[in-house]
Amino acid sequence: MRIKEERESRMAGNLTTLCYIEQGNAYLMLHRVKKQQDINKDKWIGIGGHFQEGESPEECLLREVREETGLTLTDYRLRGVITFVTDAWQPEYMFLYTAEGFTGTMGDCDEGDLEWVPKEKVTQLPIWEGDKIFFRLLTERQDFFSLKLRYEGNALAEAVLDGKERLV
Amino acid sequence: MRIKEERESRMAGNLTTLCYIEQGNAYLMLHRVKKQQDINKDKWIGIGGHFQEGESPEECLLREVREETGLTLTDYRLRGVITFVTDAWQPEYMFLYTAEGFTGTMGDCDEGDLEWVPKEKVTQLPIWEGDKIFFRLLTERQDFFSLKLRYEGNALAEAVLDGKERLV
Repeated sequence: MRIKEERESRMAGNLTTLCYIEQGNAYLMLHRVKKQQDINKDKWIGIGGHFQEGESPEECLLREVREETGLTLTDYRLRGVITFVTDAWQPEYMFLYTAEGFTGTMGDCDEGDLEWVPKEKVTQLPIWEGDKIFFRLLTERQDFFSLKLRYEGNALAEAVLDGKERLV
Repeated sequence: MRIKEERESRMAGNLTTLCYIEQGNAYLMLHRVKKQQDINKDKWIGIGGHFQEGESPEECLLREVREETGLTLTDYRLRGVITFVTDAWQPEYMFLYTAEGFTGTMGDCDEGDLEWVPKEKVTQLPIWEGDKIFFRLLTERQDFFSLKLRYEGNALAEAVLDGKERLV
């Protein structure tokens, strides 16, 4: 346990989860049309959000999915971790999940409209450039991956996979 | 990209890496005997430390291994993520690696003595209780795992695997 050492040099990162819930050949996507002040305004994104104090990735995932969709996940898998760096904000570390099992009835979401989108149409929607890389990796990779994305404003300036392969 | 939303509710976590470098049947362990003020004093731990601003897990790993051992990793694998919560400190999120390839010559470490320890002897050393779970999971699991550990003082009070299985 390395919790308490080197307190002087530590940095803290923002921690989030993102989940693509699957049903048949579709992903559950959130069309962000409800908030006026929203960096994601009018974009389509997956389900997720920020960790609360002391949550594990799974605890954050299950809470966020319940809050945003009303569904309870019963089968989910951690697929990768994304390191986001930008010219404007503190670094973010995002745990990326897919989920194939859930119970409950889908409700309304405060943050946008929920819609099942056929997988082949997802990348044609207005989504973030880096998110297109997620969809490709989720198809190509069965093992866990680590992806670092660097944004300059809204533009993806760099993407490095597993510390080795430069994608952008 | 969910970087910029919900700034009001976000929490930040301390981010670290820990690596067990393997050679033959031994792990490279660090015996923490050099610092007076050290929560790990006299314990044996793996190699690693805290993220610097904007580092990906791999970037932190490679830097920490170089700083603490003089070695450059050439073959490594991300095995799991550990969520540490305690009654005393901010939550910590630790990326756990094993490594089987490296170049360079091992040097002295400022933080303790480096020693190759046969794998079957590692759990007999004075190590943290939760670390014994790491060694077991590294043997049993080939897929990525998520482990949450809760400490009360120096005692392991709870261990939950993949959000489901309670180990302690």
